[in-house]
Amino acid sequence: VAETTNRRILVAATPEGPLAEKHFRIEDGAVPEPGEGEVLVRTVLLSIDPANRAWLQGRTYRDQVLPGEVMAGLVVGEVAAENGTGVPIGTYVVGDGGWAEYSVLPAGRVRQIEPAGDLAYHLGVFGPTGLTAYFGLFDVGRPAAGETVLVSAAAGATGSVVGQLARIHGCRVVGVTGSAAKNQVLTTRLGFDAAIDHRSPTFADDLRHACPNGVDVYFDNVGGHVLDSALRRMNTHGRIVCCGAVSQYDTGTPAPGPAGVPGLVVTKRLRMEGLLVFDYTQRFGEAVAALAGWLRAGELVELHDIVEGLANAPRALIGMLAGENVGKRIVRVGPDRLPATA
Amino acid sequence: VAETTNRRILVAATPEGPLAEKHFRIEDGAVPEPGEGEVLVRTVLLSIDPANRAWLQGRTYRDQVLPGEVMAGLVVGEVAAENGTGVPIGTYVVGDGGWAEYSVLPAGRVRQIEPAGDLAYHLGVFGPTGLTAYFGLFDVGRPAAGETVLVSAAAGATGSVVGQLARIHGCRVVGVTGSAAKNQVLTTRLGFDAAIDHRSPTFADDLRHACPNGVDVYFDNVGGHVLDSALRRMNTHGRIVCCGAVSQYDTGTPAPGPAGVPGLVVTKRLRMEGLLVFDYTQRFGEAVAALAGWLRAGELVELHDIVEGLANAPRALIGMLAGENVGKRIVRVGPDRLPATA
Repeated sequence: VAETTNRRILVAATPEGPLAEKHFRIEDGAVPEPGEGEVLVRTVLLSIDPANRAWLQGRTYRDQVLPGEVMAGLVVGEVAAENGTGVPIGTYVVGDGGWAEYSVLPAGRVRQIEPAGDLAYHLGVFGPTGLTAYFGLFDVGRPAAGETVLVSAAAGATGSVVGQLARIHGCRVVGVTGSAAKNQVLTTRLGFDAAIDHRSPTFADDLRHACPNGVDVYFDNVGGHVLDSALRRMNTHGRIVCCGAVSQYDTGTPAPGPAGVPGLVVTKRLRMEGLLVFDYTQRFGEAVAALAGWLRAGELVELHDIVEGLANAPRALIGMLAGENVGKRIVRVGPDRLPATA
Repeated sequence: VAETTNRRILVAATPEGPLAEKHFRIEDGAVPEPGEGEVLVRTVLLSIDPANRAWLQGRTYRDQVLPGEVMAGLVVGEVAAENGTGVPIGTYVVGDGGWAEYSVLPAGRVRQIEPAGDLAYHLGVFGPTGLTAYFGLFDVGRPAAGETVLVSAAAGATGSVVGQLARIHGCRVVGVTGSAAKNQVLTTRLGFDAAIDHRSPTFADDLRHACPNGVDVYFDNVGGHVLDSALRRMNTHGRIVCCGAVSQYDTGTPAPGPAGVPGLVVTKRLRMEGLLVFDYTQRFGEAVAALAGWLRAGELVELHDIVEGLANAPRALIGMLAGENVGKRIVRVGPDRLPATA
């Protein structure tokens, strides 16, 4: 390890309202030494995800990230040192690391990757967001060809893949975002049939017009008023894939639950089902193979949204929560040092 | 047909708050004549169900019952006349009739029954409430032996059967009702492992103590604050059977939806799924056979709660919404004229 300092970003305070830069602080520490069975990973790319915000607020599917701790995040990096693991130096891995130039991780908690092609794919379409789209749509939502699939946060890392997979599957696909510019991307670049803006005062009408035959599968990344409206448009025996509630993560005063629950769930015989992609670990290979095939065929496009420099990670997350990203948001922390590919 | 008057109860006004007797009026009309393909049914028993209240408020899975119309309800009765249907006079049938001494129904919309045994079973354990319990628990909730099943409105027609079926299936069964007297019935007569009172100020704690291993299946008949509390106690991959929302039917100001939706649905990977028993028509025979077997074996007990006289139907429904019934509430409208059985 040539470098001797490890720049890292710590949580400074648990937010009580919208996330701000004051909730983080940056500091330089020593590069840590891997203990027995651990690897030292030099971060190349850091994944920025809406769930990061939820981790700051309390226990979710993982422990809260507390003040004084390095902020957590998924990273792609290069093994820079190891201790009795047999993992070769220079191996590229994906793992649950931190907002830091270096992270020490148990060797059993990192996944080795082949660094051919675009490293960012391992955080995006082959990472948790792309895999969530695959299993959430096909295993939980189970659309039939010809059905209408509605997806919110549709220009985000998960939503943009969900919509494309539904289109590949033969569904009518309608996206919900917060801006006309994103909607333009969905319909012109990703093949969505329609895209509507949840901030529009005519949103409920727009939804009805975009889904003239109702909604069979709603892939919900946001909760809040979009979920409320979707519940009213669901068809009998419709399915709602509960993937996230990003509209509620960055507020100290969460909205009440959707008024249609449980009344409309009963009368329309809806199924609302949550998923976390970690339950599907045994099937990641199947999903990556399918996604890679669609990428190669040009049927699936991954959009990246790269922010340069670890110091910009707080702004990258804050901006994502405000909806500024199109596609998978990633912070480039260090160079990949790989040979350039054509 | 010997009688010439048909006493019936009409909706007088759509309720804007809690249901009251003023929302109904009683009148005597002529006994109607069946048209081609119809039967005239003399009502013996009338089913009183929480859903009756929802029908008065607006469109559900059926059209609203409007002022000036005879109040709708499931009846068991005897065919008193027919018109080209081939249904013998004196046949006993179950059908979607009305709060009246006589109803005319299309022959294809009534189901013939064998009037052996207790006629009330055809509205209770073999009727929509018992069948809802069977399909809701086994097909939607899918508990495994040893899991904890929580059921609300547990002394009601559906809940009392759900809890017993779960007990027969080898589950730990916890009931929620609104009174200590009902809870006593659940634990002493129906074999529930525990029963708690949702009106108790310590309800959330009581729920935790009654479900030390959390809740795997929650059979929800009520919505409201019981659903809120149950969501917090659900285990990972738990299932919520959305069967009804009786806490919300008799109010002009419905509560907001449960705060745990969609957040807890995601993090715990819950499945919330609605059912209406009419989707299972093709399998009613299977369910009736199974339920009859458990009744004969003494493993399943049906509790009836009989109110005498058609004129008391409004009070019977109003009282049910206030929680006064234990078991299946039925109004006896006329004599069955069957030979007494031992």
